[in-house]
Amino acid sequence: MSETRPESLHRRGFLAGVAVAGLGAAQARAESPAQGPATQAPAAPAPDKAKLPGYVAWKDADALIVHSNQTIETRRSAFGTGLITDESALYIRNNVNPPPESIVADRDGWRVEIAGVARPGTLTVGDLKRLGLTTVATVLQCSGNGRKYFQDRLPPGQKISGTPWTVGAAGCVLWTGVPLKAVVEAMGGPASGARFITGTGGEEIPPGLKPKDVMVERSVPLAALDTVILAWALNGRPISLAHGGPLRMIVPGYSGVNNVKYVKAVSLTEAETDAKIQAGSYRMHAVGEKAAPSQPPVWEQPVRSWITAPLEGSRAGRVVVAGVAFGGVNAVAGVEVSVDGGATWRKAELVGPDLGRFAWRQFALPADLGPGTHVLASRATDSAGNVQPEEVPANGGGYSHNGWRGPAVTLTLA
Amino acid sequence: MSETRPESLHRRGFLAGVAVAGLGAAQARAESPAQGPATQAPAAPAPDKAKLPGYVAWKDADALIVHSNQTIETRRSAFGTGLITDESALYIRNNVNPPPESIVADRDGWRVEIAGVARPGTLTVGDLKRLGLTTVATVLQCSGNGRKYFQDRLPPGQKISGTPWTVGAAGCVLWTGVPLKAVVEAMGGPASGARFITGTGGEEIPPGLKPKDVMVERSVPLAALDTVILAWALNGRPISLAHGGPLRMIVPGYSGVNNVKYVKAVSLTEAETDAKIQAGSYRMHAVGEKAAPSQPPVWEQPVRSWITAPLEGSRAGRVVVAGVAFGGVNAVAGVEVSVDGGATWRKAELVGPDLGRFAWRQFALPADLGPGTHVLASRATDSAGNVQPEEVPANGGGYSHNGWRGPAVTLTLA
Repeated sequence: MSETRPESLHRRGFLAGVAVAGLGAAQARAESPAQGPATQAPAAPAPDKAKLPGYVAWKDADALIVHSNQTIETRRSAFGTGLITDESALYIRNNVNPPPESIVADRDGWRVEIAGVARPGTLTVGDLKRLGLTTVATVLQCSGNGRKYFQDRLPPGQKISGTPWTVGAAGCVLWTGVPLKAVVEAMGGPASGARFITGTGGEEIPPGLKPKDVMVERSVPLAALDTVILAWALNGRPISLAHGGPLRMIVPGYSGVNNVKYVKAVSLTEAETDAKIQAGSYRMHAVGEKAAPSQPPVWEQPVRSWITAPLEGSRAGRVVVAGVAFGGVNAVAGVEVSVDGGATWRKAELVGPDLGRFAWRQFALPADLGPGTHVLASRATDSAGNVQPEEVPANGGGYSHNGWRGPAVTLTLA
Repeated sequence: MSETRPESLHRRGFLAGVAVAGLGAAQARAESPAQGPATQAPAAPAPDKAKLPGYVAWKDADALIVHSNQTIETRRSAFGTGLITDESALYIRNNVNPPPESIVADRDGWRVEIAGVARPGTLTVGDLKRLGLTTVATVLQCSGNGRKYFQDRLPPGQKISGTPWTVGAAGCVLWTGVPLKAVVEAMGGPASGARFITGTGGEEIPPGLKPKDVMVERSVPLAALDTVILAWALNGRPISLAHGGPLRMIVPGYSGVNNVKYVKAVSLTEAETDAKIQAGSYRMHAVGEKAAPSQPPVWEQPVRSWITAPLEGSRAGRVVVAGVAFGGVNAVAGVEVSVDGGATWRKAELVGPDLGRFAWRQFALPADLGPGTHVLASRATDSAGNVQPEEVPANGGGYSHNGWRGPAVTLTLA
């Protein structure tokens, strides 16, 4: 008996059994904003199999919402109640098509150019493994996670384009690699005048396009040198191509785009890169304005949280309201939970291991929810005293949403 | 290009590229004891695909050594340098065939009987999720991990039967579930006289056998009530059948057999169970003696560590010697590393997040290894001051090995 198709059962893990049938509807409701104008349903995923593009065909289709081949969201229900996010359920956001799978055929042979140091040169991943070792847990989150909550509240005539992510363009994972600081030290230290760490991704530039318009090259402040790692493993395994293997530059606490995939060059630079993805995108600007280098870049993530349980489909009675909370580069100081749409709040308990200040914490609070409709919300405070606001004014790129009302969960229990 | 078989490439993850060809030989050497009598090679795994039984066909065959359908070891090389162990590479040890996959079709419907409390009764996993939530990282380790190191040193005429595990019947994983204490409190607290927590597994008893001879029923001291959880998730996903889903009793710091899979009953009892797996097995006794209830049971794991990098196939020069160390129920206080077979020792650095006292820590120490043969060893100390000895006297079951010499790695570098 145990010889029969365990793989498919295992792979559908999160959505086992009777829960599957009703998920499409439940998901649509759970993801709709607690308040705000009635909006169109999101491009509704079929309740059976999402169509995964080939480079992520190994992922758990039932855990994911496919917005496009390059934008794939983790279902809120797929976060479950665990602490970390399995790679099979982790969101995908690419700015350019991934390189071919052949680049992970010889992982230790992947080369990265190190510049802006006293003795520049090129190292292989094999070389990097001789320079140091550490692991860091981070929340990897698309800069636009929660964009839908901005879009839903826009007045007529205003528009923010971009993927309408709800809460699922994020995950908490463990990266293993070498501290960039150890690499820089091995190469004689930073060149004089260095102010930024600039990483360049290994994507192929499609012919006919200007490289600067397409390349994924991002700069972050040199202060991050204390925490950046060049990572070869994710959750204990070599990083898949889809998530930036064989080598990814991890900038803990910074939004996803700053964590350069298939990193082929790291340079300590005097200025931010003028690649379009840095100079003309991922900037904080007003709705309707264009991005420009004078505007603040999207770097550190603000304090944020959301509910992961219970979701639609639960019964009335005693429940454990649970979710995740993180503070970007700051630790989480506390989380409050409301089961009445923000009218009253109670302090939740932080449970499970503390994976460090860049990771998310789990929180839990028992609550008695009678039959009827309830609006569950969470509001986190970070170690610097920042508290999630109720709503955040929209910005033109729909970045860094961290209001608590948008991701609130409306539940009708019987 | 990215549409071509990414799955298979991903799945072979750990052994990508040129390293594959030489692995069979490298593994055999790496796993052989640093000193001691010349022994037969272990039942050598083919360097290509290990044959995985159907219920674990979804695992990464390249990461595993199949001793039998019920005993499957993680290759030392598959630990990589990460902090946690992916379920695809986690070892398997079953005492009885797993139940059919159908038991994970409706996970929340799985029933567990709770007895030895003021108000006994049966709860579903769905009910348990309403009682509490926590996550705990533990080293899950077969009681017999390292048995080969005992077997290799036995004088002629003596014998310890059992799987010749080296270091790979272990992993560090995150479990999510409800604290058993919360369940017991919800049911009115322990019945008077309770001294043990007794968990019963959901294995089917083959017809014609006496249930007590076959059933997986284990008792641990009631003091563990402060830390035991009933877990439904492993590394953020629902627990696979192979690892005890839909529900497993996790006794942090205790060896694998105490962590009852597919747990169908938990009882607070006055005495240890008289099931054979508790009364007549997993006891500390002399070689040649039979197990008996008067002997100490195999419960808490002793302090232990091993090297995971570099392994055979590395080049001479500067390397980072890395590995994992744990202290059972005690935190790791420190780890020393020797690159000369134990003649001299240096303090290694503990790196990466501390997942709590039941988890393992990563350690790392830079070292310059010239051409020639080197014997790499690690020696951990726990927070109670216990230090790994060089060798451990053999015991009849080959349990709880924690000498540092056995798992030392002999490397020849060019």
